[in-house]
Amino acid sequence: MDLLDELKIRSDMVTTFIDQYLSEKEPSELYTAARHILHAGGKRLRPSMVILSCEAVGGKPETVIPAAAAIELVHNFTLIHDDIMDRDKLRRGHPTVHTLWGDAGAILAGDTLYAKAFELITRVEVAPPAQIKKCVRIIAETCVEICEGQWEDIEFEDRDRVSEDEYLAMVGKKTSVLYEASARIGGILGGAKKGVVDALGEYGRLVGIGFQIYDDVIDLRTPEEVLGKNRGSDILKGKKTLIITRAHELGEDIKIFGGKEASTEEIDQAIRQLEDCGSIDYAEEKAIKHVQTGKKMLNILPDTSSKQLLLELADYMITRQY
Amino acid sequence: MDLLDELKIRSDMVTTFIDQYLSEKEPSELYTAARHILHAGGKRLRPSMVILSCEAVGGKPETVIPAAAAIELVHNFTLIHDDIMDRDKLRRGHPTVHTLWGDAGAILAGDTLYAKAFELITRVEVAPPAQIKKCVRIIAETCVEICEGQWEDIEFEDRDRVSEDEYLAMVGKKTSVLYEASARIGGILGGAKKGVVDALGEYGRLVGIGFQIYDDVIDLRTPEEVLGKNRGSDILKGKKTLIITRAHELGEDIKIFGGKEASTEEIDQAIRQLEDCGSIDYAEEKAIKHVQTGKKMLNILPDTSSKQLLLELADYMITRQY
Repeated sequence: MDLLDELKIRSDMVTTFIDQYLSEKEPSELYTAARHILHAGGKRLRPSMVILSCEAVGGKPETVIPAAAAIELVHNFTLIHDDIMDRDKLRRGHPTVHTLWGDAGAILAGDTLYAKAFELITRVEVAPPAQIKKCVRIIAETCVEICEGQWEDIEFEDRDRVSEDEYLAMVGKKTSVLYEASARIGGILGGAKKGVVDALGEYGRLVGIGFQIYDDVIDLRTPEEVLGKNRGSDILKGKKTLIITRAHELGEDIKIFGGKEASTEEIDQAIRQLEDCGSIDYAEEKAIKHVQTGKKMLNILPDTSSKQLLLELADYMITRQY
Repeated sequence: MDLLDELKIRSDMVTTFIDQYLSEKEPSELYTAARHILHAGGKRLRPSMVILSCEAVGGKPETVIPAAAAIELVHNFTLIHDDIMDRDKLRRGHPTVHTLWGDAGAILAGDTLYAKAFELITRVEVAPPAQIKKCVRIIAETCVEICEGQWEDIEFEDRDRVSEDEYLAMVGKKTSVLYEASARIGGILGGAKKGVVDALGEYGRLVGIGFQIYDDVIDLRTPEEVLGKNRGSDILKGKKTLIITRAHELGEDIKIFGGKEASTEEIDQAIRQLEDCGSIDYAEEKAIKHVQTGKKMLNILPDTSSKQLLLELADYMITRQY
């Protein structure tokens, strides 16, 4: 079996679990809205990282399914609220929650998943309460950082220039902390010692940064029909991605940047400009470097098939097409 | 000292604690937005209930301050998000968070407080992890119910008629669960046995329902300068309060109900109509009945000054002016 097959097995366990956990509750329309993003697809990379990290330290995968589901719910909650804030109409090729249920419906759907995530983490029955308490603290601190990162991301849109360090600090909060939490929680619930948990956390953090940087590369290089959303939308929104901060450092002026609207030709031209100045390659290399450093953190683990999958998962972050 | 002095001592402890906990963090503007509602006033009835419940079962008040603060943060988070959904411009006489920082800012300020609440509950240092786990579960389940209740409240606006039972079920979720959680968590962290914790929870739930019903009475009877918001605003929004459902049952037709706008005279006339048909008195009596039944639950507790204050707090819910 290759990585994607292995991921699918774990992903299916999580999806089935969440589906049962959130189904047939009242008011049913609220729960339909809350499950909407989950059913719109998604690769469940974060919950897979929870499960694989647990396995890699000798834990049983089935015991951490509720924790893995909790991480996926946190992820889904942030997507729903981010889509409201960014006024995005499409997510994974489907209408966003606020497009279908209005802002109020989407705020509540997100808030419900948020609470369900914390409820779920207390339902990891085999773990001692002290481990649960640790996991609750990690998820709570992670959610705080995600909010801080999202706030900065929005704030950056109004600024003329953002430095590479500022961008990396923002991405570190907005995206990579949830990967860090995933690996860390998998390790804790798998019974690993502090040193191993810390190494897993660092693996998750670095791989998570690589993931986000590469996400911005994909946004420009992947065809729309594969992407499930408009290509180059971040350029129009004025998002200060690493690709843009690098182009700015190189003195490039991207005409349509932050201009909200542009023709397909203008977008293609802007992307060519970013390719020609080398800033997309630059970002790709940065993503690769973060992932490579992250993989080294796993040297602390014994060689097992689960460790191998964690290494492959890291590589997948920077080779995927969408 | 009378009840309000006693409440102020506990309220000040909680406010000071939260202020320190949320201050001097970056991005500072996010935390200013998150603290806005806290600084706009509020009586801290819920955290006071946590502390008094803890005291009443023999626990030390200072040990539960983080838990009491967590409850207040949950309350603040729901207010911020509710104000966005209801498009309210004033809260406690101050501009609402979304009015000052936009919808995105308010969504994030609320989300941050939400996470901070769960972080805080893991910081009750003296409590064994098993107690913390219980409290996390209670707060999470409570937040889920609050979302469900708020969803129903919005849904009710589009319906022609809502029955008294439906209204009470909605209020039970939207408002009273947080009072129930407050009393319950105070009891658990104070070291009470299950029977006592359950009785405290039932006290909180019933008193909470009384609080909400009476809140709707206040909305119509208290002068605007005391209320800090427009009088009768719920009538214009088409909120199906107990007062309205009762008036509908009596065959009254409130012309401006759900009409969004009306003159002060028209609002005064609608309120007079509700007074004349007896539906405001009816609601007040219901509120009193819930509080009286709630107080009886405390018979299980030994007679102490803290128990006495819990009884007075219950009475305060239905005698306050705002």
